[in-house]
Amino acid sequence: MEVFEKWESEIRGYSRAYPTVFASASNARQVDEAGRSYIDFFAGAGVLNFGHNNPRMKRAMIEFLEADGVAHSLDMATTTKRDFIEAFVATVLVPRGMTMRLQFMGPTGTNAVEAALKLARRVTGRREVVAFTHGFHGMTLGALALTGNDAFRRAAGVPLDNVHRLPFETAPGGGLASLEAYRAQLADVSSGLLPPAAFVVETIQAEGGVNVASPEWLHAVQDLAHDVGALFVIDEIQVGCGRTGSYFSFDGMGLDPDVICLAKGIGGYGTPLAMNLNRPELDAQWAPGEHTGTFRGQGLSFVAGRQALTYFDDDELMTQVRAKGDVIRNALEDLAAGIDGAVVRGRGMIQGLDVVDGARAKAVAAASFERGLLVGPCGSGGRVLKAIPPLTIGDDDLAEGLEILAEAVRRTS
Amino acid sequence: MEVFEKWESEIRGYSRAYPTVFASASNARQVDEAGRSYIDFFAGAGVLNFGHNNPRMKRAMIEFLEADGVAHSLDMATTTKRDFIEAFVATVLVPRGMTMRLQFMGPTGTNAVEAALKLARRVTGRREVVAFTHGFHGMTLGALALTGNDAFRRAAGVPLDNVHRLPFETAPGGGLASLEAYRAQLADVSSGLLPPAAFVVETIQAEGGVNVASPEWLHAVQDLAHDVGALFVIDEIQVGCGRTGSYFSFDGMGLDPDVICLAKGIGGYGTPLAMNLNRPELDAQWAPGEHTGTFRGQGLSFVAGRQALTYFDDDELMTQVRAKGDVIRNALEDLAAGIDGAVVRGRGMIQGLDVVDGARAKAVAAASFERGLLVGPCGSGGRVLKAIPPLTIGDDDLAEGLEILAEAVRRTS
Amino acid sequence: MEVFEKWESEIRGYSRAYPTVFASASNARQVDEAGRSYIDFFAGAGVLNFGHNNPRMKRAMIEFLEADGVAHSLDMATTTKRDFIEAFVATVLVPRGMTMRLQFMGPTGTNAVEAALKLARRVTGRREVVAFTHGFHGMTLGALALTGNDAFRRAAGVPLDNVHRLPFETAPGGGLASLEAYRAQLADVSSGLLPPAAFVVETIQAEGGVNVASPEWLHAVQDLAHDVGALFVIDEIQVGCGRTGSYFSFDGMGLDPDVICLAKGIGGYGTPLAMNLNRPELDAQWAPGEHTGTFRGQGLSFVAGRQALTYFDDDELMTQVRAKGDVIRNALEDLAAGIDGAVVRGRGMIQGLDVVDGARAKAVAAASFERGLLVGPCGSGGRVLKAIPPLTIGDDDLAEGLEILAEAVRRTS
Amino acid sequence: MEVFEKWESEIRGYSRAYPTVFASASNARQVDEAGRSYIDFFAGAGVLNFGHNNPRMKRAMIEFLEADGVAHSLDMATTTKRDFIEAFVATVLVPRGMTMRLQFMGPTGTNAVEAALKLARRVTGRREVVAFTHGFHGMTLGALALTGNDAFRRAAGVPLDNVHRLPFETAPGGGLASLEAYRAQLADVSSGLLPPAAFVVETIQAEGGVNVASPEWLHAVQDLAHDVGALFVIDEIQVGCGRTGSYFSFDGMGLDPDVICLAKGIGGYGTPLAMNLNRPELDAQWAPGEHTGTFRGQGLSFVAGRQALTYFDDDELMTQVRAKGDVIRNALEDLAAGIDGAVVRGRGMIQGLDVVDGARAKAVAAASFERGLLVGPCGSGGRVLKAIPPLTIGDDDLAEGLEILAEAVRRTS
Repeated sequence: MEVFEKWESEIRGYSRAYPTVFASASNARQVDEAGRSYIDFFAGAGVLNFGHNNPRMKRAMIEFLEADGVAHSLDMATTTKRDFIEAFVATVLVPRGMTMRLQFMGPTGTNAVEAALKLARRVTGRREVVAFTHGFHGMTLGALALTGNDAFRRAAGVPLDNVHRLPFETAPGGGLASLEAYRAQLADVSSGLLPPAAFVVETIQAEGGVNVASPEWLHAVQDLAHDVGALFVIDEIQVGCGRTGSYFSFDGMGLDPDVICLAKGIGGYGTPLAMNLNRPELDAQWAPGEHTGTFRGQGLSFVAGRQALTYFDDDELMTQVRAKGDVIRNALEDLAAGIDGAVVRGRGMIQGLDVVDGARAKAVAAASFERGLLVGPCGSGGRVLKAIPPLTIGDDDLAEGLEILAEAVRRTS
Repeated sequence: MEVFEKWESEIRGYSRAYPTVFASASNARQVDEAGRSYIDFFAGAGVLNFGHNNPRMKRAMIEFLEADGVAHSLDMATTTKRDFIEAFVATVLVPRGMTMRLQFMGPTGTNAVEAALKLARRVTGRREVVAFTHGFHGMTLGALALTGNDAFRRAAGVPLDNVHRLPFETAPGGGLASLEAYRAQLADVSSGLLPPAAFVVETIQAEGGVNVASPEWLHAVQDLAHDVGALFVIDEIQVGCGRTGSYFSFDGMGLDPDVICLAKGIGGYGTPLAMNLNRPELDAQWAPGEHTGTFRGQGLSFVAGRQALTYFDDDELMTQVRAKGDVIRNALEDLAAGIDGAVVRGRGMIQGLDVVDGARAKAVAAASFERGLLVGPCGSGGRVLKAIPPLTIGDDDLAEGLEILAEAVRRTS
Repeated sequence: MEVFEKWESEIRGYSRAYPTVFASASNARQVDEAGRSYIDFFAGAGVLNFGHNNPRMKRAMIEFLEADGVAHSLDMATTTKRDFIEAFVATVLVPRGMTMRLQFMGPTGTNAVEAALKLARRVTGRREVVAFTHGFHGMTLGALALTGNDAFRRAAGVPLDNVHRLPFETAPGGGLASLEAYRAQLADVSSGLLPPAAFVVETIQAEGGVNVASPEWLHAVQDLAHDVGALFVIDEIQVGCGRTGSYFSFDGMGLDPDVICLAKGIGGYGTPLAMNLNRPELDAQWAPGEHTGTFRGQGLSFVAGRQALTYFDDDELMTQVRAKGDVIRNALEDLAAGIDGAVVRGRGMIQGLDVVDGARAKAVAAASFERGLLVGPCGSGGRVLKAIPPLTIGDDDLAEGLEILAEAVRRTS
Repeated sequence: MEVFEKWESEIRGYSRAYPTVFASASNARQVDEAGRSYIDFFAGAGVLNFGHNNPRMKRAMIEFLEADGVAHSLDMATTTKRDFIEAFVATVLVPRGMTMRLQFMGPTGTNAVEAALKLARRVTGRREVVAFTHGFHGMTLGALALTGNDAFRRAAGVPLDNVHRLPFETAPGGGLASLEAYRAQLADVSSGLLPPAAFVVETIQAEGGVNVASPEWLHAVQDLAHDVGALFVIDEIQVGCGRTGSYFSFDGMGLDPDVICLAKGIGGYGTPLAMNLNRPELDAQWAPGEHTGTFRGQGLSFVAGRQALTYFDDDELMTQVRAKGDVIRNALEDLAAGIDGAVVRGRGMIQGLDVVDGARAKAVAAASFERGLLVGPCGSGGRVLKAIPPLTIGDDDLAEGLEILAEAVRRTS
């Protein structure tokens, strides 16, 4: 660790929480250089839906490398990118009757959100965007303005403007009433409020504490957005790509977003990729090249991401996700029963155990690490333990991980 | 191309300028699916300093994949990351007597700039940052505020504030006088100006038109920054990593920046990586985890980037860069001699032919493409043809590419 | 009127609504140059609480002029200003046990609000100020940011930032619940909200449509402000100085504001004066001279304003105000009974008849003018007829004015 | 003074510099309650061009009061206002062939500037306004953003945006070169600069240190404004109304401003009045009532201001101003000769003695006060003693005042 302590920035975070040097990884396991194996309930912050070093993807990437495929292409057309697009269209869009356009940008989630904001402001000619308390949308200045967390916001060093903040459904003052109050205010010419360009919402606030929005509330947000001439944007970065038991976290809800932001899981192997889906008539308002990004054409990400899509050719993985999600949920609810005020929230394979107290959650995470489990806190004050293992985790590892977590909870009581 | 036209966003740019589908690439060549080979004078917008699919890196990446190295690690410690850090320290920092800290963030240049801005604002407690006309620093809202190009800026849809704009050395009103005027204004309590948090400068404005700053002017910027309590930040994203004939574009100038932003070439293979070098006493002011990024731990990028560093173990490549740079410059100067008002600017293997007229430059690029050369315009109105081939380009390809360019210039006169 | 049409700015408003040239005025009467007399239910937008050309004040002003009193003094000390201060302290502050400091500034209400904002931001080190929908606080950029009316806001031509907008008690989504929701959001570190510097509130929104806040709600605002470390600022500009039946509109409510903004009526004769009352320990944070204003020392305003204070030496006028307020209210309620959805709101001698429909209100005002009554609409879309005659209006004029208004309502049904 | 110390805000400034209580005033004399007479070289910060309690105005005001003229009229038409408008048109506009429209607003200079900014932003659809270092334009948030002085700016407590700052002609980096540099930057689409809505300039920066712009430079500002589609706005608040020896300070320069801001001297008696002159085709873009102000119709100010205009019926006063201006200038130059580095700047009856050192200037002002002269420092650090006596000051008082000043300078050497 010395090298990191001496040369890497003081900003490093996870390497402090998990103080060891990892040497290899496979599916839901990371192994450190001393040979110690850890079960991974963190999955690279929700990236590794298909496990570390997924073998299908690995094979395809090696083949691609050996064939000198175009690894870096900006937004030039490549056969690899075409394969990815065709697979995405066939696997995701066509079955849902969606005709959205695929936009690639700098391959991080925050870049995807920044692009969505630009499009929304362009299309509407408006400045202000509605974001929700506890939302997490990224670290660059545009996306950070939407993010709720105070510590992240203070780091900006400049005012974070052009955002109107509403409470998330489950936050104090949230629910349908606050949406209706906002609607009434917008209808009132003396309210002093600006009409918004977009409503940007997560169906499940992952970093925000695994706060789950109901379909009814999401519909109300969508209706309000459309009634006031704003775009309805779903930030699907952490909970899309199968995490909740279907490709999109909002599948089956009958929602019709204008822009969908994807990143994290879409590149499959942890290889960076970000992509927005834009409603075609809105997308048509982009001028060529006006939002660029050097790394928006990533051959390896397209190759791995194309393999990831094969997991959606049939319902096998999603069925497993729903089943394993139940396993996790039941286990967490057993733990919650023993903790004053604790609750479990989540859907599919994102489940959060809110232990109310941030110090307690931190202690549980530390005790888990000592016992060979990677799990991290999220939410206000870090009071929620978030279980987001790879969707492909084996039943044994899942059971063992939950057992370690239970033990860690017991030890820190 | 149909797939792209039907499903990809209207924002796509390069695939319009280079309307073919590329299937493979090797060093300075890209081959399309019809088997046509193109010489690459664009190098992925300055990323591919070591050529497409560099064999050293390819081999190392395949080995890494086969060994199940940790492909995605957030900012956890991994053996691969340690190897990269150690090599960077040994190859770049130690020989220069530098003690800077390495900070990793979301792996795009714009994320690096956003992180630098946060640090500068944190350290100084100031809001405003000095940027220069024609500068290019990225597309997310914080970095975009520094970027000069009007089309990019208008796409923001919100005011881009907290930036004070000075003319670049070579721009109208530029030079030492404008720096001294600004110094005098800052010294004047009734100037209405805010003291700046940082000066962010490119030594050569690549996107801005291959505008080359002199060491004298850069020193004046640095001195001014330090005299007024601001950070001196060099955005080395496009011209670092050997492009100009030494690792940093400012090597040998005696400059001492507080933050150096790196991206593009540092990942070696076109694999995304971004890294800031922060002066240690400034870096110490970061709180753990307050600027994050899902993809800041990229195993493949560390592996390829570590191989890239081997090119700096001796002076062979850099000697070649200086020699080939002269070849390019001479060829371009021959072309400039035949064009009214044309000039050549650049250093090492970034050379720009300013043909004064954007339409002319666009026509030259199109004619080059038809003849098998990828080259792109940059600068105001796109009037500068920028030659930035891989540093590893063979002499034959270089000569052939320059010949095609010459022919294209002749055809469009 | 020709001179005005030819030479005065197109921005003129009231001279279009009341298209005649006034030559003289006395108490609740204005007489035009054709000799036609109008009853004034508008009182110079709430300035002329003591009538046009109040004889006590007129006599005092003439004496002051003849004695060469200091008419213009910036913030130098003058005997006239001292007389005013002493009278204000004795008449208003001492009986209420208030120890607030008197601050004079540019003699308009908007300047008073701007000064209050500066003090609140200085004292708290915070940027954002809470204002309420339908609030009216002035036309200069700082005060305008607090004002709710969309037409006024759009005229700014720049973003109006640093304000957090809550619904006024009587507005959609208003009431105690919205205050509690905001309190909960402020307590939540991931809400993305900034802690506010101040809550700026009118006890009765005069321009906003005669919306009357309850003492309970005002206490909740005050409590919330103090609990979150913000100042509680009452903008008393239109409804202070006796308008509601006591000197302050909040007398008897047990409120304890940190800053009280006064203007309009305080200068007595329509002579400009603005004054803030600041809690002493907050006031102590001002540095000498840091908020200035050329006309902050107005001898004539001090003289007239000092006479105005004599109306508060006993309870006679205030008793009349309460009685006449009842007369107005009863008359308006009779009118409301005949109009679908109409309601009457107000306290003391500010009473509004909300006729629901802006066009109807405008027609009533026009018909009133034709019949010799000056009355104006306010509120969203101008749907509220606001009756604010001089407090000193004679019973006959009051009765006649109400009769004209009733006739105008009948004629426009 | 006790009353002021106990009850008036800590923000009071002049009453600290001139610690006595004034009881009466006449022309260039103020007399305190102890009977001590002071010669006034300050004239209420440039308001009292026609002396304290000017007898022509006093008589007219008393007559107006006795006749029950309309003292307060918002923007309703009154005979008194018509008289003022007609006189202004006949005396000022017609002789100059000007057709500008008169706009009245809240009667302070800062309100006039705020209105000008709104009009400029409305007409151009642009946000940013050019202001100059050392400029002083007012204390409300829009005007304060234009003001250069750091202490005033810091009191805002919020970012002061939407202003682009250029050096004034006489400031470091100023002159024609900086205007040309800015022109070049605006012509450059990659400069990152916004096209400005207006250039707001004082011909002589009064508060800024009596910095005098040359006609050549003012023409260059005007030309640049018009070439880039911006308004050319002259803030004439302190140096208009005859102060420099002609009605406008720019008379005879051939300038053609789009908006002229007037206040201070225009009301004549120290009675508040502010008025903008707008080019008719720009003025036409105002919507009725969109910039209001309770006190924009001041009967007493119109009466006194109308009398003030009589001073421009012939050239007598202006001839005297030029002559007395020479007297002042000569006297100050004698003083400057004895002070290291001191210079004299000014035109007509605004003359500044820059003694280089703020502490020295403050000491001179204090010593002058002790000897019976009111004079105040201005400029950066308060290093300039500004002599702006009433234009009507008698030769004896002028000579005596200059003698006291000379003595004070000697005593503080």
